[in-house]
Amino acid sequence: MTSDRAVILVSGGLDSATTLAIARSQGVDGYALSVDYGQRHRAELVAAARVARALGAIEHRVIRVDLSGIGGSALTDANIAVPESSQPGIPITYVPARNTIMLSLALGWAEVLDASQIFIGVNAVDYSGYPDCRPAFVNAFEQTANLATRSGVEGTTHFRIRAPLIDLTKAQIIQRGLELGVDFGITVSCYQADEEGRACRHCDACRLRYEGFAAAGIADPTRYFR
Amino acid sequence: MTSDRAVILVSGGLDSATTLAIARSQGVDGYALSVDYGQRHRAELVAAARVARALGAIEHRVIRVDLSGIGGSALTDANIAVPESSQPGIPITYVPARNTIMLSLALGWAEVLDASQIFIGVNAVDYSGYPDCRPAFVNAFEQTANLATRSGVEGTTHFRIRAPLIDLTKAQIIQRGLELGVDFGITVSCYQADEEGRACRHCDACRLRYEGFAAAGIADPTRYFR
Repeated sequence: MTSDRAVILVSGGLDSATTLAIARSQGVDGYALSVDYGQRHRAELVAAARVARALGAIEHRVIRVDLSGIGGSALTDANIAVPESSQPGIPITYVPARNTIMLSLALGWAEVLDASQIFIGVNAVDYSGYPDCRPAFVNAFEQTANLATRSGVEGTTHFRIRAPLIDLTKAQIIQRGLELGVDFGITVSCYQADEEGRACRHCDACRLRYEGFAAAGIADPTRYFR
Repeated sequence: MTSDRAVILVSGGLDSATTLAIARSQGVDGYALSVDYGQRHRAELVAAARVARALGAIEHRVIRVDLSGIGGSALTDANIAVPESSQPGIPITYVPARNTIMLSLALGWAEVLDASQIFIGVNAVDYSGYPDCRPAFVNAFEQTANLATRSGVEGTTHFRIRAPLIDLTKAQIIQRGLELGVDFGITVSCYQADEEGRACRHCDACRLRYEGFAAAGIADPTRYFR
């Protein structure tokens, strides 16, 4: 098992770009994985390819899994609108089991690559209240990963799920990314970005992003369509 | 959370057909889920639809996720042949992280349906040596599921991953299925079944299946193409 290879989940947003930069700064060969799950913000996937290339990933793959067949989220069901003001509780943009599904796909590719690390840009501070962004979830998935796999059974590796942003504020994530040379102008966070990757300014993802730039005291490179 | 709804992973094979029959015998409303992961044995998915209908599932959905983009298995990589004799260790038909991926998708649908049970036909006795068929894996995934989800955070449910075949021999599975009225003639187990669902007789899945019928003392309804 080659421990200097890592699969990094790259969505095209600010958090995963910083996560890829952190992985690369630790000297790992980065294999970027994006999941096309039928999300309404297609511009994300275009941004993911740009981010993977700009940050020196060895390879970038997109796996398509059609979660619109499941629905239950504003991001995958065209009949549920993206809210433009904060709501209490877990928001309707939560996609059922999304991070479990994405980590599972990353685990499959990691096993094929002999990569022992999987990076995911989840964050439990300035986040949207999603259950699958918490440390307890990440730890539980790591245990599952080591029981689910050939290398787990054969004892040839221990998979590590790395969540380097988990304790950072959005401002700290932005600062860390800038230190590592991330160009946030090529990232797209908005849940309803237009085809050119311009943002709506009003959804939770936009709000967390511009508040992060403001708190970090850094000019926001985001382009808005309104 | 409605505990009388369950998502059942149905592949079209003998084990998952029995699993669906067991779930139905416990009075749950069954929602059958098949995963089209680019497996070479496409006849499985046709069989899955037949099985779901015959055993009274409320609904049958197929989610497509293209694992051929990952490869690493004789079932998803056209360049790796299905072995026709037993090999020591974990066989090349093992699909990296397959059960983790399929359970994750089932979890997503279960959350949307308010179903608290997920059934999977894994078996740790007469099985192929796959890591993700063992009780420790099933238990670890159950823990992950309860941390990954809205209902886990809100405390409104406890997801149960049910693996009713896990301690049974293949002969016992066949006997249980027959008691519950399963017509095994409509199931397809072979890893390289032809378009009509006829089996090869030589792969691991065929071998486990015909040895099971022989041990149970029951006529094997499988149709072979050679």
